Amino acid sequence: MSDDGYRAGAVDLLGILAYGALTAFERLAEDAQIAPTLTDKVQLATVAARQIGHFTSVSDQLAGMDVEVMAAMEPFHAPFDAFHGYTKPKDWYEGLVKAYVGDGFAADFYREVAAFVDADTRNLVHEVLAAEDLHAFIVAQVRQGTQNDPKLAGRLSLWGRRLVGEALSQAQRVAADRDALTSLLTGTVDRPGMDLAAISRMFSRLVANHTKRMAELGLQS
Amino acid sequence: MSDDGYRAGAVDLLGILAYGALTAFERLAEDAQIAPTLTDKVQLATVAARQIGHFTSVSDQLAGMDVEVMAAMEPFHAPFDAFHGYTKPKDWYEGLVKAYVGDGFAADFYREVAAFVDADTRNLVHEVLAAEDLHAFIVAQVRQGTQNDPKLAGRLSLWGRRLVGEALSQAQRVAADRDALTSLLTGTVDRPGMDLAAISRMFSRLVANHTKRMAELGLQS
Repeated sequence: MSDDGYRAGAVDLLGILAYGALTAFERLAEDAQIAPTLTDKVQLATVAARQIGHFTSVSDQLAGMDVEVMAAMEPFHAPFDAFHGYTKPKDWYEGLVKAYVGDGFAADFYREVAAFVDADTRNLVHEVLAAEDLHAFIVAQVRQGTQNDPKLAGRLSLWGRRLVGEALSQAQRVAADRDALTSLLTGTVDRPGMDLAAISRMFSRLVANHTKRMAELGLQS
Repeated sequence: MSDDGYRAGAVDLLGILAYGALTAFERLAEDAQIAPTLTDKVQLATVAARQIGHFTSVSDQLAGMDVEVMAAMEPFHAPFDAFHGYTKPKDWYEGLVKAYVGDGFAADFYREVAAFVDADTRNLVHEVLAAEDLHAFIVAQVRQGTQNDPKLAGRLSLWGRRLVGEALSQAQRVAADRDALTSLLTGTVDRPGMDLAAISRMFSRLVANHTKRMAELGLQS
């Protein structure tokens, strides 16, 4: 950690992960409240609880770098709170699609950034992002829901488009505000990174993965 | 587990614990939403997440007894939901006092019942009830709050009385409806239990502990 710029970028990545886990906890706990059955509630509550485990892991990693998790998260309150403020699910299905599409998009982005950090931090990022066992549950629920109510598919397709639009606009805001994080991607003289063409390919990958996820849900993107 | 009556009582105790943990998760997650600071939010979210760990432990124990956790919890939906329905906290402090006083009362009651079950189940009950590290946090918050606003102490004292009143009335409902659970306490010909005098002493202990908890919060009971 001799490179201050590198260190600041890694702290930013961990700060995003920590705040992301905390807001995911809140959102999943809210979704659990409106779960149609107690079994569904337990599913969501279990995944919500796991977010706090992730938060604690990231917080410990930051502590090892002498950084307070509260301070590391602070720059990311505004973009996350704006994203969640603009994308409040109106029902159970919108909540599920948001968990699938929004978290999937964010996870892809974190993995892209993690390619440029040290092995320790990268392993932590992958560990935090590995727990995706809600996916089969969400796919089954959404497919069932749209089968029973054909109009729902159209509404959820629009919803998916809005989610990815908001996610992209908040990601751009973060990129514009946080030089340290951006320079993790672009690199420095001493540290290789992505050129503009590579960054544009990265965004293509993010959008392609989003399209794939919508298709898994049986929705148009 | 040769004694069917005993087994049914133990399943009831575990069913109560499981549903209690699940509703505690929901309530703490709701309290976390209105936490005045992000640090407070993390505190509550962490304890909420731990409830799901408890739920999973109890659920595993029931599975080992060939009992589905959903079935074991079913008889206790009504009393828990009624308790929570009648005691909705109106603000942050009422939520904290409810977590302290309500969970404390419930924990005492579970421990009393656990004295009459097998060592395995008893250890699980004690393990689930051991994590009380929110207590110092709640005591500090409530004492600070009532210091800043003397009227708050009066309101919270009344609130504590209402909580224990509702808890007692729901506990009586459970006792009346669930013979297996009650007979854990009272015993059978082959299995020693409490006589009426001992049960009345148990209720005295529950009320005495409640009074002690209110005093710790700096509130009258």
